[in-house]
Amino acid sequence: MKRTSYRLAEIAARIGGRVLGDAGTAVNQVATLENAQAGQIAFLASEKYRAQLDSTQASAVILGENDADATSLPRIVSNNPYLYFARVSSFLNPPAPVVPGIDPAAVIGEGASIDRTAHIGPHVTIGKHARIGARSMVMAGCSIGEGVTIGEDALLYPRVVVYHDCILGNRLIAHSGVVVGADGFGMAMDEGCWLKIPQIGRVVIGDDVEIGANTTIDRGALDDTIIEDGVKLDNQIQVAHNVRIGAHTAIAGCVGIAGSTTIGQHCRIGGSAGILGHLQIADHVEISSFTLVGKSIKEAGSYTGIFPISENGEWRKIAVHLRNLDELAKKIKILQLDVEGLRRRQT
Amino acid sequence: MKRTSYRLAEIAARIGGRVLGDAGTAVNQVATLENAQAGQIAFLASEKYRAQLDSTQASAVILGENDADATSLPRIVSNNPYLYFARVSSFLNPPAPVVPGIDPAAVIGEGASIDRTAHIGPHVTIGKHARIGARSMVMAGCSIGEGVTIGEDALLYPRVVVYHDCILGNRLIAHSGVVVGADGFGMAMDEGCWLKIPQIGRVVIGDDVEIGANTTIDRGALDDTIIEDGVKLDNQIQVAHNVRIGAHTAIAGCVGIAGSTTIGQHCRIGGSAGILGHLQIADHVEISSFTLVGKSIKEAGSYTGIFPISENGEWRKIAVHLRNLDELAKKIKILQLDVEGLRRRQT
Amino acid sequence: MKRTSYRLAEIAARIGGRVLGDAGTAVNQVATLENAQAGQIAFLASEKYRAQLDSTQASAVILGENDADATSLPRIVSNNPYLYFARVSSFLNPPAPVVPGIDPAAVIGEGASIDRTAHIGPHVTIGKHARIGARSMVMAGCSIGEGVTIGEDALLYPRVVVYHDCILGNRLIAHSGVVVGADGFGMAMDEGCWLKIPQIGRVVIGDDVEIGANTTIDRGALDDTIIEDGVKLDNQIQVAHNVRIGAHTAIAGCVGIAGSTTIGQHCRIGGSAGILGHLQIADHVEISSFTLVGKSIKEAGSYTGIFPISENGEWRKIAVHLRNLDELAKKIKILQLDVEGLRRRQT
Repeated sequence: MKRTSYRLAEIAARIGGRVLGDAGTAVNQVATLENAQAGQIAFLASEKYRAQLDSTQASAVILGENDADATSLPRIVSNNPYLYFARVSSFLNPPAPVVPGIDPAAVIGEGASIDRTAHIGPHVTIGKHARIGARSMVMAGCSIGEGVTIGEDALLYPRVVVYHDCILGNRLIAHSGVVVGADGFGMAMDEGCWLKIPQIGRVVIGDDVEIGANTTIDRGALDDTIIEDGVKLDNQIQVAHNVRIGAHTAIAGCVGIAGSTTIGQHCRIGGSAGILGHLQIADHVEISSFTLVGKSIKEAGSYTGIFPISENGEWRKIAVHLRNLDELAKKIKILQLDVEGLRRRQT
Repeated sequence: MKRTSYRLAEIAARIGGRVLGDAGTAVNQVATLENAQAGQIAFLASEKYRAQLDSTQASAVILGENDADATSLPRIVSNNPYLYFARVSSFLNPPAPVVPGIDPAAVIGEGASIDRTAHIGPHVTIGKHARIGARSMVMAGCSIGEGVTIGEDALLYPRVVVYHDCILGNRLIAHSGVVVGADGFGMAMDEGCWLKIPQIGRVVIGDDVEIGANTTIDRGALDDTIIEDGVKLDNQIQVAHNVRIGAHTAIAGCVGIAGSTTIGQHCRIGGSAGILGHLQIADHVEISSFTLVGKSIKEAGSYTGIFPISENGEWRKIAVHLRNLDELAKKIKILQLDVEGLRRRQT
Repeated sequence: MKRTSYRLAEIAARIGGRVLGDAGTAVNQVATLENAQAGQIAFLASEKYRAQLDSTQASAVILGENDADATSLPRIVSNNPYLYFARVSSFLNPPAPVVPGIDPAAVIGEGASIDRTAHIGPHVTIGKHARIGARSMVMAGCSIGEGVTIGEDALLYPRVVVYHDCILGNRLIAHSGVVVGADGFGMAMDEGCWLKIPQIGRVVIGDDVEIGANTTIDRGALDDTIIEDGVKLDNQIQVAHNVRIGAHTAIAGCVGIAGSTTIGQHCRIGGSAGILGHLQIADHVEISSFTLVGKSIKEAGSYTGIFPISENGEWRKIAVHLRNLDELAKKIKILQLDVEGLRRRQT
């Protein structure tokens, strides 16, 4: 594939920033400082990589204001070089154009309404009365249930499953293996056996949401599970029934969120964290990776609960002391009384 | 879809319970107290929601004996209102009828035996000599291996994969992305390289089991992996080879169970918990979310091992002390000796 | 299916080892000591199962040198009975022969190059210019993206997805639900909203790699994500963008590895462990299950960080003390000063 090149002047005209050096330098792709080749533009967003500036083969570099003179290469200076790089990369790597049409090996249910600019791939099934919006792309082997609504400019990679009646917004990106709208884990105990409770809510997903590979979002038990606008979910996340995730919250891989919990807006949840059910998490909360949230969090801030890693033998000692912490605390109390007694007798 | 309405008297006649107020009140769906509309029946199963009883728009309510007079709305009184609600919901939301037949876009292997009341969806593959029982529904894109047996009234949502020779019981529900019978993680070290050990056992699943989206259950290495009757597995659970899960045990999302472990009956395992291999867990054991079970549990009871969450700075302090716990314990020992010494000299 | 039997003499001629007892004894399958039947060969690799040697119905047994005389059954003696068993099992359970050909219900993109000895199953899609090597088997419903290269003798179970341009080596085994090459979780914050960064790297996988069911490996952001030769990944593992996993490293189920981390060769990572991003893990490192690696590990060795499990009430006490550890440490310091003061006054 032949790539289109753009001069730095053209890039700055579109995206902003200040060009230093030869503004006629042409680039056609972004790259890391370390691996860039001629014709590519790299970026320096962290001091850690500064040494690579001298050895890079990039034709141009994106730099912060403080680093404006750190190289003699042609460069674009921006006050947020990482964001600037993201914009350049989006500009140089536009999404593939959507080829309209329905593959003959797709199976379309009665009454389904598929925009004529949408693309439906091979081995897709679209349920009765489902609606697929303009320029949306449903790739090979997806299964879209009855009555599902998918907005405009959505991109469903191969083998996404959406159960009946769920609503997905505009510009959704759902990666392969995503399952939206499976039954929540709802049941009542009936004399030693579990009685399944029908899950009659839906999943409702806002605009500009991205969902990573093999992530699952369960439908609500009675009311809906809700993912607000701009939420970004990484791979292998489990979102249980009746969870609500606030706008622009980002959640890293392997997180599990139990039922009926509400997460605020602009939160960041680290990988493999867990959040128990029926909790309220405020806006602008950061949860570290591998941390269990066991109670509601009412104030913005950063929260952690991780057992520190040690060499095995060291850990074993710590674990034993941890188990004996109550005894240790008692010993301290006794010592305090003893010392008090000694002091009294001394005076 | 037009919903069928039932009078409270009809419901009580089928399910039991005592009607107070107008027994002719008709309802067609269950709902939460908060979001119920006219024509719906809500329930009060927790004191937490009691205030909603006054403002609910529900036409009727399910209540416990103690709350029998907590509202003047038409109501059904039961000694277990949550279970009662579950039964009403099951009654009002029966499963969709199975449409018998094999989709022309399915591929059926030689010698496969599919009951004529079963439903096989588009893009399904059924392996040679597989057997699908009466009224079972295998939805779009499932892949059923050679020699697999699926019982009666099973429901496999789109894109379930069952590897060869596995046996699945009656009334199974398997959600999308489930993989039953993939190879267990078995290998032997051979001069720095891993030699794969063929996994020749099967997965054998009892009756009335439900398996959540993207959950994986590996086949046995030599003997079988076994899931007993009535087990309920949530989403994204990993069950390794040769695990046995006892009847009516419920396991929440994202749990990992390592090889050859046996879990008893009527256990409850919280989300994101882990269970090491070759362990025995007794019946009626509860494991908290996010807890690692590192040794066998011989007695019924509730077990936990979670690092408590704190604000980041607080956590950092705790973590440092935790790493120094051995030193701390030594300091206490020295203090004890010192105090003993002081006391001896004082007397 | 009729199984082929082999005499112990034949097995030892192929695989090595010393036969004791009747070398004409024929076996056709491996089994555990406990469940072996006549015609099967069992093995003793752990003292734990020694008692089963007396009651086994196996026709022959594989034993270590020290146990050579522990039974009078026909037996093969080896200095590594577990590895020997693995070899016998591989010999008795060869992979099913690959049936060459492309299923008529597969959809093959323009310019794709499929070796004539390869097998492409029903409902598979192969993207433009993809290449499938000799004797490779792509089972039902897999989706292979544009420009993907798959080596020789690879086995992709049903419903594997490989995104465009990824490179997969020889003898790869990828289980159902695997997703290779989905976008990494890369974005820049732009005035409260997330701007997606195109993920233009690939996934490059070496030879002799196995990937468990529903495991996901993200493509690189700029450079590639790399899985070296002989790596074994269990089920439901998440490998983020630009991770590199060294040769012959084995990773158990449910592990999450964050972006740009490099894991050495010959490492072993326990189930449900987590590894933060941008770290370096040395060769020959072992990480325990359920442990978070939060910093680089520079030396070979075994590392752990697990909160020990306790009965609930016990845990609650420990957790409270843990939260008060700073206070406890302060009390000890005061005690030390007090004791010092007392001692000074005493002398």
